[in-house]
Amino acid sequence: MNILLSHLLTLEAAKSGQNCAASAVDEDGYDLWLRYRPLAEPRRSAVEKAVRAFVLGAASPTMTAAREELERAFFAMLVKCVPVLDDGAICDGAVLAGTPENLPLISALDLPLSDLGKEGYCVSSLTHDGKRVTAIAANTDIGVLYGCFAFLRHIQTGGDPAKVDLAAAPKLDLRLLNHWDNLDGSVERGYAGYSIWDWWTLPDYVNKRYIDYARVNASIGLNGTVLNNVNAAPDILSDFYLEKAAKLADVFRPYGLKVFLSVNFASPSALGELATSDPADPAVKQWWKDKTRDVYRWIPDFGGFLVKANSEGQPGPGDYGRSHAEGANMLADALAPHGGILIWRSFVYASDPGTDRATEALSEFKPLDGTFRNNVLLQVKNGPIDFQPREPVSPSFGQITETPLVMEFQITKEYLGQTAHLAYLGPAFEEVLKFDTHARGPGSTVSRILKGEIFPQKVTGIAAVANIGTDRDWTGGTFNQANWYVFGRMAWDPDETAAAIAEDWVKMTFTDEAGFVRTVVDMMIGSHETLVNYMMPYGLHHQVATSHHYGPGPWVSELDRPEWNPTYYNRADENGIGFNRLANGSNAVAQYSPEVAAKFADPHAFGERYLLWFHHVPWDFPLTCGKTLWEGLAARYDKGVEGVAQMIASWESLRPQVDSQRFEQVRAFLKIQHREAQWWRDACLAYFSATSGRPLPEGHAEPAHTLEYYRSIHFRFAPGDPA
Amino acid sequence: MNILLSHLLTLEAAKSGQNCAASAVDEDGYDLWLRYRPLAEPRRSAVEKAVRAFVLGAASPTMTAAREELERAFFAMLVKCVPVLDDGAICDGAVLAGTPENLPLISALDLPLSDLGKEGYCVSSLTHDGKRVTAIAANTDIGVLYGCFAFLRHIQTGGDPAKVDLAAAPKLDLRLLNHWDNLDGSVERGYAGYSIWDWWTLPDYVNKRYIDYARVNASIGLNGTVLNNVNAAPDILSDFYLEKAAKLADVFRPYGLKVFLSVNFASPSALGELATSDPADPAVKQWWKDKTRDVYRWIPDFGGFLVKANSEGQPGPGDYGRSHAEGANMLADALAPHGGILIWRSFVYASDPGTDRATEALSEFKPLDGTFRNNVLLQVKNGPIDFQPREPVSPSFGQITETPLVMEFQITKEYLGQTAHLAYLGPAFEEVLKFDTHARGPGSTVSRILKGEIFPQKVTGIAAVANIGTDRDWTGGTFNQANWYVFGRMAWDPDETAAAIAEDWVKMTFTDEAGFVRTVVDMMIGSHETLVNYMMPYGLHHQVATSHHYGPGPWVSELDRPEWNPTYYNRADENGIGFNRLANGSNAVAQYSPEVAAKFADPHAFGERYLLWFHHVPWDFPLTCGKTLWEGLAARYDKGVEGVAQMIASWESLRPQVDSQRFEQVRAFLKIQHREAQWWRDACLAYFSATSGRPLPEGHAEPAHTLEYYRSIHFRFAPGDPA
Repeated sequence: MNILLSHLLTLEAAKSGQNCAASAVDEDGYDLWLRYRPLAEPRRSAVEKAVRAFVLGAASPTMTAAREELERAFFAMLVKCVPVLDDGAICDGAVLAGTPENLPLISALDLPLSDLGKEGYCVSSLTHDGKRVTAIAANTDIGVLYGCFAFLRHIQTGGDPAKVDLAAAPKLDLRLLNHWDNLDGSVERGYAGYSIWDWWTLPDYVNKRYIDYARVNASIGLNGTVLNNVNAAPDILSDFYLEKAAKLADVFRPYGLKVFLSVNFASPSALGELATSDPADPAVKQWWKDKTRDVYRWIPDFGGFLVKANSEGQPGPGDYGRSHAEGANMLADALAPHGGILIWRSFVYASDPGTDRATEALSEFKPLDGTFRNNVLLQVKNGPIDFQPREPVSPSFGQITETPLVMEFQITKEYLGQTAHLAYLGPAFEEVLKFDTHARGPGSTVSRILKGEIFPQKVTGIAAVANIGTDRDWTGGTFNQANWYVFGRMAWDPDETAAAIAEDWVKMTFTDEAGFVRTVVDMMIGSHETLVNYMMPYGLHHQVATSHHYGPGPWVSELDRPEWNPTYYNRADENGIGFNRLANGSNAVAQYSPEVAAKFADPHAFGERYLLWFHHVPWDFPLTCGKTLWEGLAARYDKGVEGVAQMIASWESLRPQVDSQRFEQVRAFLKIQHREAQWWRDACLAYFSATSGRPLPEGHAEPAHTLEYYRSIHFRFAPGDPA
Repeated sequence: MNILLSHLLTLEAAKSGQNCAASAVDEDGYDLWLRYRPLAEPRRSAVEKAVRAFVLGAASPTMTAAREELERAFFAMLVKCVPVLDDGAICDGAVLAGTPENLPLISALDLPLSDLGKEGYCVSSLTHDGKRVTAIAANTDIGVLYGCFAFLRHIQTGGDPAKVDLAAAPKLDLRLLNHWDNLDGSVERGYAGYSIWDWWTLPDYVNKRYIDYARVNASIGLNGTVLNNVNAAPDILSDFYLEKAAKLADVFRPYGLKVFLSVNFASPSALGELATSDPADPAVKQWWKDKTRDVYRWIPDFGGFLVKANSEGQPGPGDYGRSHAEGANMLADALAPHGGILIWRSFVYASDPGTDRATEALSEFKPLDGTFRNNVLLQVKNGPIDFQPREPVSPSFGQITETPLVMEFQITKEYLGQTAHLAYLGPAFEEVLKFDTHARGPGSTVSRILKGEIFPQKVTGIAAVANIGTDRDWTGGTFNQANWYVFGRMAWDPDETAAAIAEDWVKMTFTDEAGFVRTVVDMMIGSHETLVNYMMPYGLHHQVATSHHYGPGPWVSELDRPEWNPTYYNRADENGIGFNRLANGSNAVAQYSPEVAAKFADPHAFGERYLLWFHHVPWDFPLTCGKTLWEGLAARYDKGVEGVAQMIASWESLRPQVDSQRFEQVRAFLKIQHREAQWWRDACLAYFSATSGRPLPEGHAEPAHTLEYYRSIHFRFAPGDPA
């Protein structure tokens, strides 16, 4: 049964008393948080009173998108067509949307537009000519569209339709999704089906999904998207694909979403057009200049290139004895004439087996700081390793001072349970953004660094690896949608709280009933810590199985490179566990400011969150709680499993308030999560027990299976595995 | 905007006059032909009068499915809940659905149940106790479910709800889909996205799509599905996957859909459990007995195994010097105690470079005919080569007389334009099924052979390679849905006509407006011949590009095996073109009955449809139409391109009657098809012109590009490519 009608009939049923199985509400999640549903009385009348007509600025592709969104939303909420007054005459309940240029009326309202910049908006209830109206105003068409979505969110989250007073402007310039989508349709680390880009029917066929993708991103203020995997096929730069990418850019443009592409550094030679891709070779420089000109011919407002170079087998300037700066600057020079941006990833390691992988990115790029062109941005993962359930912040934030930094988060849960595990990333993002690097004294938070408040940045930005695929609900699970949402909201304002954003998401995704909202927000806020507890407590990291990263593999030690092995990170032996990164160890702490280094050197700092990241300690190491580390570890794993059990109980209590399709999916996923949390706990404790030669602590149940059993578990077809 | 509501509002708008863009009807194709929509008056009242209440047989999983389908359908069509009378009391407009056992009332109606067998049904309007009712009756619950779908189709296609008189039973026992779905989620030769089986969240999570898949198949009478690719990963037989397959079997069971699995012949050794997979080895025999018992422990009503052996690199008994019969019989013996069936594919070739590939399947299996166990069926592709746009029927039909044959059709359009090309396969299936093999005199049609009317068959069956994936509309395009539909209908009754089935499909998929139906049915009926004309006219075959089979490659001649090369099939040179399969050639004609062989030996027989399949003729060969072959070829290619242009014109004329989403997709796909039809024509004529040393015939435009250009076209990421 389809969605809007079943909602409508639920309301009808309340009046007429008729009801049957077939009228049951069911939802497939496709609408995400743009979930406009028929309102029940008295809410419906209140909204209808405040939204009697639309008065819109002169048509443009973006204003048309704004008009369509308002029409679509209120048609669905009021189940009636709200008229658009073309003559511009206003009435009580008129909703005015426009800029001073496209709707002169806006100028007359003297709204605080001067502070809003090129993307900001304000939405206000006010009286004009004795008429009570709502104004959605901005300096630009895209600002108006953002304002429309802000107004809709206000309504969707239960705000008073007659009392609106919203004003906001984004705090970061570039707010990007990175798709790790391959040209063959697979998605690296994707757990939501295929790539949503159907390269084969583009450019002729525009799947409605492309438009909805742009709408959804605009609704949370994202303004750029990198279409293809950073492990980039050179083919993306062929006309065959550029024509297709250009069509997507055309579809996205009205929604303020710019297209970027990942490029393979060896494209000139890989495409067979030159003998080399040496950035010092004039022919190579010229090739990139010409190719970039082609790209801009296809996509006049093209955003720029994203590059993964000399990392995990990708080609790069190092192949020719050139530095990352020489490579990046060559591409930056090709982009500069067109106003394009070059985003270079700092995710490199494996320089030599002796060094601590956690130190390599900064060691590599610190000496280059200040040598990059103006239009180069360095994209840095949030932590020094690789999107682990928990990492200390990357030392690059605070130490790279003369090159604009773009934060790279990962929305897709490569290391966090993938499809099924419920882990709301808001608190994890918040932990990183609010972290004080002390780079310029107290208050030098990562958020302020990204905003350019600590070090001058011409351009600011944030990016995240998307979790989007062809699954009907886009993200392979209802709660995975929240991670796309929270990233967008924090990209717009890195100082928003995970809890406030979660509350909006729950209201828009399910219902604004207070008890329901409180219960689900509590589940979400605790979910990340719960996952850390059953996977990698106390600063443990990279304990995952090989290649697909699905499930535990703390014992893995035979991989070619030392830093690929979980044992490299846990360093567990009969005496103790943990990676000594202090001065007498790898001295990674020295990469942080003295204040931060001193705290990391204290094993008990930060509630022992980073204990085993920075310290190798004996199994009997006394924790703040009084337990030994061995006891504490076992307790944390248990706590994680218990946390999932609590989520299951919470969810079960909500059954009457959720449609069956989404309820059952979440329920089934929590069941998987609970089983796998036990797997994580038992497999890790079985290994650490064997390694330490210690029985499990008092009162702790033996693992369900032997260590050999856990070691024997292998999957050949795990999803998202590039291998 | 969602589907049912927008339909509903279109009706409302007609009354209230209100209307706006947001209320426009839009469709995403997910419902396929089970597209229940609010009815307009006076139709609505007529249906409501005839469907006032349901009286259903005692609940069972299948009867519950029947009840839910009736409730869902009439709720959507009448926009009201039709009550279920539990007390069994009947009233005017009651719809009675059941068997004599689960609804005693049915016995009282003395309906002709005796002819209906285990799966048949009858649906009749009648008067009982002075009440005008509709009876949906059968001998079994599944028969009742099929009857409900028949009743719904009657309503959907505009039948009088008060005058129903339907009775039918399937003419074939096994009606199977073959999924070429890999365990990693990819689909070999799949052009509709990912595999719909999410092995990773099974068995915990039952995606609603699994249930809808079963509903849809039941609605056309399919009763079995092979879940995985015939190029089978041995892993499918591990408990890890069997548990997941068992969950799907549980979901499908109420809908009469049995699960089958493709198995890898080398599983015992490939899974590392035995040193060999030699079918003569007692340990191997025992392994299969044990494994098969496990399978039945997981799936008590498991259908059986499908095997591709010693074909295209797959392992088989030949690897151990055993015959196909020895291999098949070993598996058949393992299945027999459980009532399981072993389906062995006859698709083998490459015995030695000298032989004509077209003859190999029969040469291999004819000597084995009669040596197979009773529960072995031989699955034979419709033609001797491999699902070409047009092939003469496989000689196995008529020559294999003591082994039950299962027809293997291909619904996914591997060689027929893949995603975008509109090619309704009904006429192609019909051409094969109605073909007279003369195996036992005139009238020995393939249809009658399949039904066991020519040679005794204990079990009869038909199968087709599915075109189903995770695309929202299931098949990657609206008209691809029709090929799933027509296969199901012809599997139920191989004697139905493609035209009658197309008419039902159009009415159920779009509208029953007479002019619309006529126009679309005409498009569909002509579409296959149009495709043959622009791809491979006059019996040309296998002229496709390498590996992905996307686009033309008549010049390809360098592949390892001769029979992989298009030049092997076209044999074009300066003198002529075509494959001589007459007595003075490969003598493939000798594999057919004398009557058929004689006709094939006549180049002009069958309207010259098979001319170049059986004959190598000079370029100046005179065709019946008076043209030379070279002129005729050029004319046919043109006719094909022109046919696509006509479909475009027809479709454009229907714009007012189709929702925008489906209209635009079909329009875009036809545009692609038109461009690619020209590509096929120009590339093939450029090659044949160069080969024959002849300019294009008088009045025929030169190809748009040079032959070198066409030869230079390569794709690295074409969909569905197993390479």
